[in-house]
This record gives sequence, structure tokens and C-alpha cells, in this order.
Amino acid sequence: MNKFPRPVRELVSMFERLPGIGPKTAIRLTFYLFQTPPHFVQDFARAMVEMKQKLKTCSICYNIDETDPCRICRDNQRDKSVICVVEKPLDILAIEETGSFKGVYHVLGGVINPLLHIGPDDLFIAPLLERVKKSTPSIKEVIIATDPTMEGEATALYLKKALGKIKPDLKISRIGHGLPMGADLDYADPGTLAEALKGRRSY
Amino acid sequence: MNKFPRPVRELVSMFERLPGIGPKTAIRLTFYLFQTPPHFVQDFARAMVEMKQKLKTCSICYNIDETDPCRICRDNQRDKSVICVVEKPLDILAIEETGSFKGVYHVLGGVINPLLHIGPDDLFIAPLLERVKKSTPSIKEVIIATDPTMEGEATALYLKKALGKIKPDLKISRIGHGLPMGADLDYADPGTLAEALKGRRSY
Repeated sequence: MNKFPRPVRELVSMFERLPGIGPKTAIRLTFYLFQTPPHFVQDFARAMVEMKQKLKTCSICYNIDETDPCRICRDNQRDKSVICVVEKPLDILAIEETGSFKGVYHVLGGVINPLLHIGPDDLFIAPLLERVKKSTPSIKEVIIATDPTMEGEATALYLKKALGKIKPDLKISRIGHGLPMGADLDYADPGTLAEALKGRRSY
Repeated sequence: MNKFPRPVRELVSMFERLPGIGPKTAIRLTFYLFQTPPHFVQDFARAMVEMKQKLKTCSICYNIDETDPCRICRDNQRDKSVICVVEKPLDILAIEETGSFKGVYHVLGGVINPLLHIGPDDLFIAPLLERVKKSTPSIKEVIIATDPTMEGEATALYLKKALGKIKPDLKISRIGHGLPMGADLDYADPGTLAEALKGRRSY
């Protein structure tokens, strides 16, 4: 790295701090940017700063949008009595793509992960409980849509208990697990297959 | 993509234009940047613009550096009579890492590639020929170190002919091909193995 000119070293070290980008890729991207037209790097830098400046975190659901409250929380067509709890804003976009959910969301900002020292207090769990307690119209259902990973499952369990304590009549559900559409049954892992059997529906 | 706020869309489309970064990675990087501390994005944008502003292309060898001529062309300890021809500035750094070359370089800025409509005139070949013709002290050897790919080999052959025409007494060599150090012979491809046999040295 010391053989690089300083401006190269600085940009390489920035790229390296992005997830999934190692030293080799960081160097390749830096040298690529050097040979792009002058306006490209300017536009890139501006897009980066603007994204950070213009986006806000919604004070109701912690989604990311240009407005606060976000476009989903402001939408009167959405069913405010059903909350879908997700780990991160990107998950909202994935669910919105399906067009099959008309309720609202709540972003946790991650999952409980003891190895990374992330406890319930580090996530937006308290605001969720507050929202369920005080919201009008009253919340009827909370769908927990954390990822089906070890941490996601642990977080779901924690939420289930915490929500049940606050509002015993609340319907709490977990997003369905099973075979992904288009999957090949004999390639499915035993955990997924077991969940698919447990989650079978009358047909 | 339309479901994203505009500032997100803009940054995602920028990331997508970098080599090896697809739509999914571009989205992930954009959302990652959103949750970094405010100064990080500012620093990143600044590093990007500064890299572009501060780096120059060396007018002798077409390497990238903070100064023109670059630090290698300015160095009086280097043997100016031996030129190693490479495709891109990164290749110089790879060779410098070895510490076993004391000559100077010439960057072609790519290779001849008919499929991409890149001909000899699109590369810094004319300045190389000019350099070999006029340089004092006189150039004794040109080592052609383009990649051992189809395009790299074709470019090497083109250079060999062009250089031979200009200066018949010039020593022209090609960087050695063969088994990479630490390689396993029975995993080597036939092309590499054939080159390794052809390039055998007395021992």
C-alpha cells in the first residue's frame, strides 16, 4: 500500500470499509474511478452526500425516506392496525415489491446478537412496544418478519414475549417459513423442509 | 427501483456503474452508507474528488502519480535504458512490489482488442515508439509485460514487430510464462504447462 500515491491510498481505505469489499477490489475500484470522465466522480461524490443529507429516518416506523413520516406511514389507504416488524429498511422494499401487504411497518434496525453485543436496548424495540400500547386505531396484529436465522428467530421470540406482556389480546404472527417458490424438494435443507411440513396448509 | 426514494436511486445507479458491482450490491452499499456516521460519507466523497484532482498521468511513461514526471521517471537510480511495457498503472505496482526490476516503465493504457474496437492508435504505443527512437541514454531493452491473455499476446506481437522496425538492434523480451510459484503441476492447464516447458532454464 505504501507504494501508492497518498490520494490513492486514502480512497482505497475508504472503499475497504464498505461491506464485502476487500483490498483487491478497493484498489481496482479506485483505479477504475481514476480513468472515468471528470464529471463522473463529481456526480458520484454529490450523490453520496445528497443521499445522506436528504434522507430521513421516519419517527414512527424508522423506515428511510425523503419525508418524516415516511410515505407509507402518511398513506391513509394503509391499514394502520397491522404492523409488520422487519430488521432493516431494505426488507420493507422487498415486501412492498410483492404488493400483498397493506398494513404498516416497524424497522428494528438489526437483531439481537450477543456475540456482537447487540441487546434489545440497541434496537427500536422500545418504540415498537410504545407504539403498540398507545396507537389509535388500536393495533390488532403484529407480523414478525425478522430473517429466519438464529439471531432473527431469537429476536422474534423476544418480541413475542414482550408484546404479549404489554397487550395480551394482540394477534402476534411470524412470517411463513418453508420451501421457496421454484425450489427443488430434494435440494432443500432439513431445517427448511421441517418448517415446510410444520407450516403445511389445508388445500 | 421505483420504490426507492430518489436520492437512493441516484446513488445506487452510480455504484452500479463500477466494475463488478451488480444491482443487489449497489443497493446494499447505498443502505450501508446511510447508516454510517455523517463524517464518513463526507470523507469518502472528498477522497474521491481529491484522488481525481491530485493525480496526474506521467507524460513520459503514462503511469499515475502525484507528480509529472512520476516518481519512477524522476528517480536517477533507475536504469533508463530498460523499459518494461505494461497494460495499466496497477501492473507497475505489482512489479515494484517484487523489488526485482530497476528499469523504467511504459503504460499502454490497455491492449489491442478488435471486439471492443480498441486498435493500436487507441493505446500509448506511438509515444513508446517515439521514446525508443529519441531517448537518451539510448534504450537497450524493452520487456513486454502485457498479460498472457489472447489480447495481451496479440499486443505483445504487434509491439515486437513495430519496435523491431524502428530499432533493429533493440533487445526485445517477453515476461516469462510458466507455473506460478507454489502451484501444483497436476492442476496446471495445458497452455501454462506447455509454456513452462518451452521456457525451461538450465539448472
